[in-house]
Amino acid sequence: MKNKGRTSASGKESAGSKPGERASAGLIPAAAAPARVVIENVQPELDGGLFPVKRTVGETVRVEADIFADGHDEMVCELLYRKEEENAWTRAPMTALGNDRWRAEFTASELGGYRYTVQGRIDRFSTWLRDLRKRLEAGQDVRPELPVGAELAAAAAERAAAVKSDARKLSALARDLASAGDPREKAARLAAPDLTALVSKWSDDGDLVRYGKELELWADRVKARFGAWYEVFPRSCSQKPGQHGTFADLAARLPYIAGMGFDVLYLPPIHPIGRTHRKGRNNSLKAGPKDPGSPWAIGDRTGGHKSVHPELGTIEDFDRLVREAGGHGLEIALDIALQCSPDHPYLKEHPEWFRRRPDGSLRFAENPPKKYEDIYPLDFTCRDWRPLWDEVGSIFRFWMGHGVRIFRVDNPHTKPFAFWEWLIRDLRRENPDLIFLAEAFTRPRIMNRLAKAGFTQSYNYFLWRNAKWELESYFTELTRTQVREYFRPNLWPNTPDILTEYLQFGGRPAFMIRQVLAATLGASYGIYGPAFELCEAAPLERGREEYLDSEKYELKQWQTEAKKGIRDLITRVNRIRRENPALQRDSELSFFRVDNEQLISYGKRSGDDVLVMVVNLDPNHRQSGWLELPLAELGLREDKPYQMHDLLSDRRFIWRGPRNYVELSPDVMPAHIFRLRRYARTERDFDYFI
Amino acid sequence: MKNKGRTSASGKESAGSKPGERASAGLIPAAAAPARVVIENVQPELDGGLFPVKRTVGETVRVEADIFADGHDEMVCELLYRKEEENAWTRAPMTALGNDRWRAEFTASELGGYRYTVQGRIDRFSTWLRDLRKRLEAGQDVRPELPVGAELAAAAAERAAAVKSDARKLSALARDLASAGDPREKAARLAAPDLTALVSKWSDDGDLVRYGKELELWADRVKARFGAWYEVFPRSCSQKPGQHGTFADLAARLPYIAGMGFDVLYLPPIHPIGRTHRKGRNNSLKAGPKDPGSPWAIGDRTGGHKSVHPELGTIEDFDRLVREAGGHGLEIALDIALQCSPDHPYLKEHPEWFRRRPDGSLRFAENPPKKYEDIYPLDFTCRDWRPLWDEVGSIFRFWMGHGVRIFRVDNPHTKPFAFWEWLIRDLRRENPDLIFLAEAFTRPRIMNRLAKAGFTQSYNYFLWRNAKWELESYFTELTRTQVREYFRPNLWPNTPDILTEYLQFGGRPAFMIRQVLAATLGASYGIYGPAFELCEAAPLERGREEYLDSEKYELKQWQTEAKKGIRDLITRVNRIRRENPALQRDSELSFFRVDNEQLISYGKRSGDDVLVMVVNLDPNHRQSGWLELPLAELGLREDKPYQMHDLLSDRRFIWRGPRNYVELSPDVMPAHIFRLRRYARTERDFDYFI
Repeated sequence: MKNKGRTSASGKESAGSKPGERASAGLIPAAAAPARVVIENVQPELDGGLFPVKRTVGETVRVEADIFADGHDEMVCELLYRKEEENAWTRAPMTALGNDRWRAEFTASELGGYRYTVQGRIDRFSTWLRDLRKRLEAGQDVRPELPVGAELAAAAAERAAAVKSDARKLSALARDLASAGDPREKAARLAAPDLTALVSKWSDDGDLVRYGKELELWADRVKARFGAWYEVFPRSCSQKPGQHGTFADLAARLPYIAGMGFDVLYLPPIHPIGRTHRKGRNNSLKAGPKDPGSPWAIGDRTGGHKSVHPELGTIEDFDRLVREAGGHGLEIALDIALQCSPDHPYLKEHPEWFRRRPDGSLRFAENPPKKYEDIYPLDFTCRDWRPLWDEVGSIFRFWMGHGVRIFRVDNPHTKPFAFWEWLIRDLRRENPDLIFLAEAFTRPRIMNRLAKAGFTQSYNYFLWRNAKWELESYFTELTRTQVREYFRPNLWPNTPDILTEYLQFGGRPAFMIRQVLAATLGASYGIYGPAFELCEAAPLERGREEYLDSEKYELKQWQTEAKKGIRDLITRVNRIRRENPALQRDSELSFFRVDNEQLISYGKRSGDDVLVMVVNLDPNHRQSGWLELPLAELGLREDKPYQMHDLLSDRRFIWRGPRNYVELSPDVMPAHIFRLRRYARTERDFDYFI
Repeated sequence: MKNKGRTSASGKESAGSKPGERASAGLIPAAAAPARVVIENVQPELDGGLFPVKRTVGETVRVEADIFADGHDEMVCELLYRKEEENAWTRAPMTALGNDRWRAEFTASELGGYRYTVQGRIDRFSTWLRDLRKRLEAGQDVRPELPVGAELAAAAAERAAAVKSDARKLSALARDLASAGDPREKAARLAAPDLTALVSKWSDDGDLVRYGKELELWADRVKARFGAWYEVFPRSCSQKPGQHGTFADLAARLPYIAGMGFDVLYLPPIHPIGRTHRKGRNNSLKAGPKDPGSPWAIGDRTGGHKSVHPELGTIEDFDRLVREAGGHGLEIALDIALQCSPDHPYLKEHPEWFRRRPDGSLRFAENPPKKYEDIYPLDFTCRDWRPLWDEVGSIFRFWMGHGVRIFRVDNPHTKPFAFWEWLIRDLRRENPDLIFLAEAFTRPRIMNRLAKAGFTQSYNYFLWRNAKWELESYFTELTRTQVREYFRPNLWPNTPDILTEYLQFGGRPAFMIRQVLAATLGASYGIYGPAFELCEAAPLERGREEYLDSEKYELKQWQTEAKKGIRDLITRVNRIRRENPALQRDSELSFFRVDNEQLISYGKRSGDDVLVMVVNLDPNHRQSGWLELPLAELGLREDKPYQMHDLLSDRRFIWRGPRNYVELSPDVMPAHIFRLRRYARTERDFDYFI
């Protein structure tokens, strides 16, 4: 069957138009009247189709649209989809949901871009058949109507000529309808759904209307959706106090990191660090001779974004680290910070890429009154922007050449959206398995736009959402509104820049609470370690979120042998995440009622895997309350007990009915991660829990 | 100032693109980087700008958009609007609402089409000034920054060369900033807002981004929003029993109709009625020789849609009626029913416009199993659709030539949407004062689409919304969602086709209740009289909404002299509507809480005119309850009394606080229409109610 048809009206009548002029300017033969079918409110569709919706391989997208025509005719509606690079559409019938809403879904089974759209047409044969049945029910004489159906069947037979078996059946149907005989029996013979479908299949496409837009979907690999990230400074991995750590030192720590169950090992910039205006300990303006400087002040005379800091090792050492990490199930993510120390080679080679004052002096980075004298920003809209954009592309390609597929991008919100849109499309065309994490802590519209522009995942406001109502409203926005089609949160309870007040004052329980929240509210989450698992909580000063003696400006020796911190909890939670598909996606999140503002409860499910989390948000006191579960939604019966298996403590509770008591002591364990075990019956009516 | 600029990104990168290729394909000089400004989520915008939003002359439209750029720059945003036929935009500054949302509004001061769009640009001078102030506050040395501002001011001066006084001020500013002197004093001098605005006015348009679409607004005359309609069959207006009424008879009844306070006098079709298959009394298949037939079975050998039924009078009589009605403040609305009796001249002149069975026989109208043998539908998508569409246009033009500007369109949902869109645009281009009321009782998507396609007003589900929750949810949808931008409900408690169950069983109070609801929930409402004001409640049979002895098939003599019905109430309510602007628009409707499901309360306001309605929905029993008013929203204080003036009974109640008792007896009066009189003080602290 051909797919051609008219497109849904999307132009405007111009002044003094002839009837139907708008339509006739399109695909419609001049003689045909404008199409009767209307397609509206197609979902998902981002900003009128400007941006792709996101899925990961194996996920489905549910496509809905209002499709209707004037009058009362029966409609046939279809979803069309294809891989971006293919020409042929796959067609899936849409189901009527009532009220002229239609739905179908398709699975993004491969990595890369998809296109989808919908179409609808008036089904004359079904309309005729429906009316015939109504007439028969009303006891009317339907004999004058039979030739109408016969004519439609005969026309279909003609169109089916190339497919002999179809044509034969259709001709037989046409003959049957045209012949004398009891109309009731004829109608009864038409009850066979495949016969009606056959007429529909070969019916006239003249009424077909295709939605005017081809919408886009991008299918990432699963890690775009589900992964546990661990951020570490390689230079702090040396076992010897005061010695600069190397890639080899980090390699030696891989068992420790992999042992906690992380998937992604994310490194701050690994490039040479500038000397000029280098920052000293605690961000002091004057560095001592041994101060290593901030890794984000990139470049010295030995190289820039495509070089490795000599003290970390060589590029071969890096390659070896990538391989060894892979052996531990850890994928390396690199931080790309598009800015230059005053010593970066770009400053000499491409002075045209930097901003200057009228007197010709270079402008360092600043967010007044804050100054970053050790960093010069690149001017992405300078006169010579094209070579700059290309050069930045080549930085990513360089590291892709060294096996890196995940990039955490520093401050993308200070570069133009158009740049990211171009860059990410361009790179992903060659490597659809790339993942880009946007580190944009800024206004919501900007964060959302970066996600639409192509960033795979995004840092977000989770850091500062601590109260129950804050968490509920923020995660409802992320998972229940259109935002979920393009914005994938990656939840971090801390970063090298951000030690939240909650962690500063909450003690060890605060770290446990935030870890469980991050790892169960978000399929993607990460921690900046070892600071996090060791519960490092000292701020530079009261009222600031900066770490005291921040690793950004000095080498550290973390006492991971001596202290355990919350490592066991992290290990257990990461194992629960791997064993429970429910925690591997952000959709299907719902919040449950607890009559205590300090207790939050939410559920996630994936098929039979149903998890119910209860977290005490108060790091200081035991809290208790009554949790109310929506039994019907969870597939439970009011009158049967069910088992709540706490995967953290491995204790099992038998509950009954919607309201049950919960109590959590932050000193012991501030959370439950319940797996719901339903009550089932065997054929012998022997009760057990599955 | 020029308005040119780049348009907001709306294309897609194509395969293997060069950086910024998308942008460079547009209006941007090849050398410039893609624009940084993004414009999203412009409201109101219907279906991506496909349809105009609706207002009436004098109403404003509030336009909002998310406008932002990467980074932290200050923005300047503007709303642009113009009459459709003009070229020059009027510009209005937009106000920042926070969170990158901007707002401005404009008033549609004239009849006809408007265009509007928005634009934004980065304001470099304001950004510089903001940062300068932050630096000064932090006690930093700002001397290196002054030349930056000087350069921006000098560039603005250059662009302002043609406007000498501006150029002079800007040059002076540039000199001041470039000169030696205390930076604090210079910054203080910049506090003058007109100076900053002047730099902004002449600043570089290079960063300007215009939204990619010009959106449409259509401004109707006020009657499109506010009017009381009265439907009457002219043929039933004779004073002599059994005699066919004429236009002259109707003219004699104008004082009666105008006396009740109606604005629009709507007549069912006034054309010759077919003989063949004419329907008899109560829709019987066989008409008696004296049966007048249904006015919707249009056309006989004397003429069709452009002719007057001879028994009603001549076209000159009609012209006279139009004039005389005008003298009583009544505007005539005609019913256009695009269908033909078997005797309509079109059947002979244009047999190609009708549907046929395979045997060549014509198809009459039907909605199986219902049959309408006295009517043949026109086939709007027939092969010869163009001449048909043009001919239909000429029908409207014919009656426009006889002074008609309001058309009630019968069953528009059985004709293609594209037809209405073309027709209404085409007719309104010549006569922007036209009003089209869509009589489409069908599925919601279809009703909405007809409104988008151009219908000024729409019949709606009010007829069947009787319970409090039904009314609240339906009118919330109509007045609080995007639907309000294009769908104007005209509320009818009855029509010749529909005598609701509520009216059949509720007695006289039911008629009072539905009249008050229609007239106060809707700025436009109508009744089919005299059946309504005389409380005619007999159905053809139990369980059907058809009138017994329906006027559609026979002549009537209404006892308007002998019976008063609810004429006094109607008269009073219509006067209240005319005196209170709050009842003249559908926006600003809100529902209030009453602790009795049979009592509904809602408010409407227009400036100082604040009305609070309370209606007892139960026609059988007295109902009472506590009404809760949102005092702050209504501009009232908790601690001061306020007066509720019931405009129906003319009684005044002094209330205090949010909760007050209400009680309504359907036998007496089932409703309050309160005008809120606020408590005020004079300079002598003398209390009174305004």
